[in-house]
Amino acid sequence: MTSVEIVEVGPRDGLQNEKLIVATADKVELAQRAIAAGVKRLEVTSFVNPKRVPQMADAEDVVKLLGRPEGVTRIGLVLNEQGAQRAIDCGMDQLGAVALATDAFGIRNQKQTSAESVEVARRIIAMGKAAGRSAQVTISVAFGCPFAGEVDPARVVAMARQLADAGPCEIALADTIGVAVPGQVSRLIAAVRAEIGAIPVRAHFHDTRNTAIANVWAAVEAGAATIDAALGGLGGCPFAPGAAGNVATEDVIYLLDRSGVTTGIDFASLVTSSKWLGGVMGKELPSMLARAGGFPEGEDA
Amino acid sequence: MTSVEIVEVGPRDGLQNEKLIVATADKVELAQRAIAAGVKRLEVTSFVNPKRVPQMADAEDVVKLLGRPEGVTRIGLVLNEQGAQRAIDCGMDQLGAVALATDAFGIRNQKQTSAESVEVARRIIAMGKAAGRSAQVTISVAFGCPFAGEVDPARVVAMARQLADAGPCEIALADTIGVAVPGQVSRLIAAVRAEIGAIPVRAHFHDTRNTAIANVWAAVEAGAATIDAALGGLGGCPFAPGAAGNVATEDVIYLLDRSGVTTGIDFASLVTSSKWLGGVMGKELPSMLARAGGFPEGEDA
Repeated sequence: MTSVEIVEVGPRDGLQNEKLIVATADKVELAQRAIAAGVKRLEVTSFVNPKRVPQMADAEDVVKLLGRPEGVTRIGLVLNEQGAQRAIDCGMDQLGAVALATDAFGIRNQKQTSAESVEVARRIIAMGKAAGRSAQVTISVAFGCPFAGEVDPARVVAMARQLADAGPCEIALADTIGVAVPGQVSRLIAAVRAEIGAIPVRAHFHDTRNTAIANVWAAVEAGAATIDAALGGLGGCPFAPGAAGNVATEDVIYLLDRSGVTTGIDFASLVTSSKWLGGVMGKELPSMLARAGGFPEGEDA
Repeated sequence: MTSVEIVEVGPRDGLQNEKLIVATADKVELAQRAIAAGVKRLEVTSFVNPKRVPQMADAEDVVKLLGRPEGVTRIGLVLNEQGAQRAIDCGMDQLGAVALATDAFGIRNQKQTSAESVEVARRIIAMGKAAGRSAQVTISVAFGCPFAGEVDPARVVAMARQLADAGPCEIALADTIGVAVPGQVSRLIAAVRAEIGAIPVRAHFHDTRNTAIANVWAAVEAGAATIDAALGGLGGCPFAPGAAGNVATEDVIYLLDRSGVTTGIDFASLVTSSKWLGGVMGKELPSMLARAGGFPEGEDA
């Protein structure tokens, strides 16, 4: 791999797991800062029930204020057909559906069994395509579940097969609760890629147990085309209080820059924006690179 | 790799980079707790100038109070022949010498050029062997230097060759300032191993830029026999204020346990002791596993 695409998920997955309700203008600025740093695809918001997720109640407003930045793919997360219709109506470029790898997580999180979530995701993909939008799907808790514990890789591969048949533009594997280890990531991505042919794989990691950067590297080496990350490591984990959130975009960019993998994203710009975001959130964010700084130039160098 | 040895470095490298001067009894308890969790080799203290490193002024007292726990190898870090003699006199099992990969770091840190540090380390190894002790050596700033910036891997390999000729029981590569990335780790360990024959390689990482766990995994995959870690991620980094310290032992054990690599160390016991250590230090330590907890059993499982 000499280049990898980054999807900035801070405005959606990051903020959704934060208690502080962020102003619409700040959400838009977060997206704009990511784009200014070089991000070409970002999860702008989710079209979900505002009673269940108050942080996303301004979805349409965020999309409207952000407009259509040139060359940028704006993703709207959707969990059902109603959400998909809202995303289509407000002009999203891409729908992001979600399928759950376990019944235990699915029923609690989306009131769907795992099998039902696959069917709903397939219908969302079809709706997106019918409306002339691209549509992708993320398999959540693919590496471990807070309720079921271990997840059978064969179940994830079978889901990927069923989802691939609906023709998504991409299938993602998500370590929703931050339990994955790199060998596991390598094996599951290889197994899924062998099953879904030319459909690209995206990988989504949370840094709950300090393994996210190792998992990003394993995913890149295993051929994942795209990595999700959130500026500052925004997000936390509802299943592990006090834990870090999504893997931080600036931490991923440090890893990839130093490894000779290009992303088109400017590290210094991310660090500046991460500090701005810490101010918005009123706390120090989990990102380690915003604190430590990049590779030292070397005063003697 | 199906098993890896862990060296607990909290009592030395961890504490040495902490501002709080820890009571001798607490240092001994830290070592005892590591041993109780299953650690078989630990860096107990360093025999350095107490005026330069007040935290280590009680070196002989720590060693005396700890005694000789059965089956445990107690390492004393030494930077010169005077320190080596002190370590031998107080009965350390193993001497740990240090060579610096750059002149810029060597002169500032040990008042030695890189070449001088290699010569001193060779003499320390000889002293240890003459006294019937094992002796190993760590190559510091092997992956990047705060003063010189990039470090030429060929320089590190050449140093390893010169050090190997003195007959150490092990050669370690240290990412002293936490800048390494996993591809770099894989390549450097492979190059060093090709040069030093049967001498085992140990790897030492700081989690300053969120890459330590990825680097541990890369090191294990590249054939490192031993990994350094400090309970709780004790230590910080004097060159990156606010940054995390040594990679946390409990974070490493989570990675290895979940990856099927045995260490003989009990994860739950480490987490308990990490929380105790946070109390001693009066702060939350960087370890992520102490906060998040291990892999969830799964309430439905």
